[in-house]
Amino acid sequence: MRVHFWDRPDDAKAPLSVGSATFRCSFGPEIPADTQVLIKGRPTADDLAQAPGLQALIVPFAGIPAETRELMLLHPSIDLYNLHHNAADTAEMAIALYMAAAKRIVPRDQALRRGQWSEDSFLRGGSPESVRAAGKRALVLGYGSIGQRIGHICEAMEMDVMGIKRAGPFSDRARPLEELDPLLPNTDALFVALPLTPQTTGLMDARRLALLPSNAIIANIARGAIFDEAALYEILKDGKIGAAGIDVWWNYPKGDGACFPSSLPFQNLPNVVMTPHVGGGSDVSERERWRALASLIEAIADGTAKPASKELGY
Amino acid sequence: MRVHFWDRPDDAKAPLSVGSATFRCSFGPEIPADTQVLIKGRPTADDLAQAPGLQALIVPFAGIPAETRELMLLHPSIDLYNLHHNAADTAEMAIALYMAAAKRIVPRDQALRRGQWSEDSFLRGGSPESVRAAGKRALVLGYGSIGQRIGHICEAMEMDVMGIKRAGPFSDRARPLEELDPLLPNTDALFVALPLTPQTTGLMDARRLALLPSNAIIANIARGAIFDEAALYEILKDGKIGAAGIDVWWNYPKGDGACFPSSLPFQNLPNVVMTPHVGGGSDVSERERWRALASLIEAIADGTAKPASKELGY
Repeated sequence: MRVHFWDRPDDAKAPLSVGSATFRCSFGPEIPADTQVLIKGRPTADDLAQAPGLQALIVPFAGIPAETRELMLLHPSIDLYNLHHNAADTAEMAIALYMAAAKRIVPRDQALRRGQWSEDSFLRGGSPESVRAAGKRALVLGYGSIGQRIGHICEAMEMDVMGIKRAGPFSDRARPLEELDPLLPNTDALFVALPLTPQTTGLMDARRLALLPSNAIIANIARGAIFDEAALYEILKDGKIGAAGIDVWWNYPKGDGACFPSSLPFQNLPNVVMTPHVGGGSDVSERERWRALASLIEAIADGTAKPASKELGY
Repeated sequence: MRVHFWDRPDDAKAPLSVGSATFRCSFGPEIPADTQVLIKGRPTADDLAQAPGLQALIVPFAGIPAETRELMLLHPSIDLYNLHHNAADTAEMAIALYMAAAKRIVPRDQALRRGQWSEDSFLRGGSPESVRAAGKRALVLGYGSIGQRIGHICEAMEMDVMGIKRAGPFSDRARPLEELDPLLPNTDALFVALPLTPQTTGLMDARRLALLPSNAIIANIARGAIFDEAALYEILKDGKIGAAGIDVWWNYPKGDGACFPSSLPFQNLPNVVMTPHVGGGSDVSERERWRALASLIEAIADGTAKPASKELGY
């Protein structure tokens, strides 16, 4: 089977035996005509035309781009796959952002670096500014491989956890999207781990954000566009929710210059923790990506791999 | 029974019925001569002399000060108690500091506020700078009410967890202090949740710190003096371990002016996350302190309360 990698994987000590009798592997921008499995996140129609016998496209990360999903809908004979190799990394980033927001890690760190101790240090008499996670209600929007990991860690922190998912099976803890609105007023911690699809774009709009209680903390490690950008900015600026930890944005850098991640000045808000879309990466994520790719290619060859839905986008 | 509070609790809606027939409660710096239970963190010999029939001293927080422990050793007829009402807050702060260090939350936040995206953002080709918790080995030094909560959350993050405790019962996961040194070279995440006692002061000295692997991350929410100050600074400055999240220090502010938390410039280290001894406080900690005090006073009256050890200090 001919497997073509658009990008050469970093890890040369990969478990897939490149060039073995089983898989003939190739790399780079020239796609061989006999390619059966193509690994590329954003293929073009031209890419697909170069390999008339293509059976499978693997997007080598979790979030299938909208343009890829739409292109593949035009090619019903090519199965679409994505990877969940970094679900642990992304779930951990959601927890890290939530905890940093709940414990005000960034402003406290910056103040203490100047020798300034918070009023609520144990030596002072002020009211504590941390939020205790234990006993709070967490709502995980998107209850797949990342969302369930987030929920599991929240449960260990003694939070009450509910998940929202689009497709069944449902349970007491995993509810359908239709139940989102009535759950929002009882949500202390909102974790967003949804794929970006036409149905989830702008899902968290001004009306839904207004349903959250005033102490709510949001953590978004999915995609920026799930939120109405102006509505999220306003509700944070006005202190109508507690805080947000945000890894995914509306603006991304095109070149090497400075690029603010939104057209609105989130960088001026003290109740925001901001990271530059790094949730999916870690010291082991490239190794795990390669392992997951190798397993998936073997499963495709065996006929046991389960494709993503081109309609749902995950 | 006469119960005297040195500080008036904040929460007026407390479950203990102050002034009830059961407990005669009083507040303030004048200690009535008939006081049987005194609530004060750092009593003096004079305080104790004012109440000749004193049966119990309650330190209204977890970390019994050394001078209190030593004073109470001179008064064998007075039982010593402390509170664990904020174990969840403190354990969560340990997790928050570890995750902030592992995911480089503070420097990434500060850079993105200037429009600067890390080289390892998903759009760039650099190596990810985050550490994945899952699969790493956590060692929790001090496996009491705080340490076990830390361990439980780490297990939910799929870490391999070992605890070190001074007194038995021991188990596969809870090992005696004598086994600390051989465990350190296999420790990716070192959580410190020990009481400060003569035996733990300076426990993490230059020799033990040198046993940690180069990627190790330390989180200390116990007391600064458990670490050799200069040795911890040097190993972080030289990059011989990965990072540290520190809530507890060697220097504390005496007045309102700026006070750096160490005589060494930890504030110049990019691989440190620093918070001003706020781990024990949260939005619910004062309410929980009051509830725990009320329960403890009732248990003392019933004869069912378990005192702390004046020798061990916890």
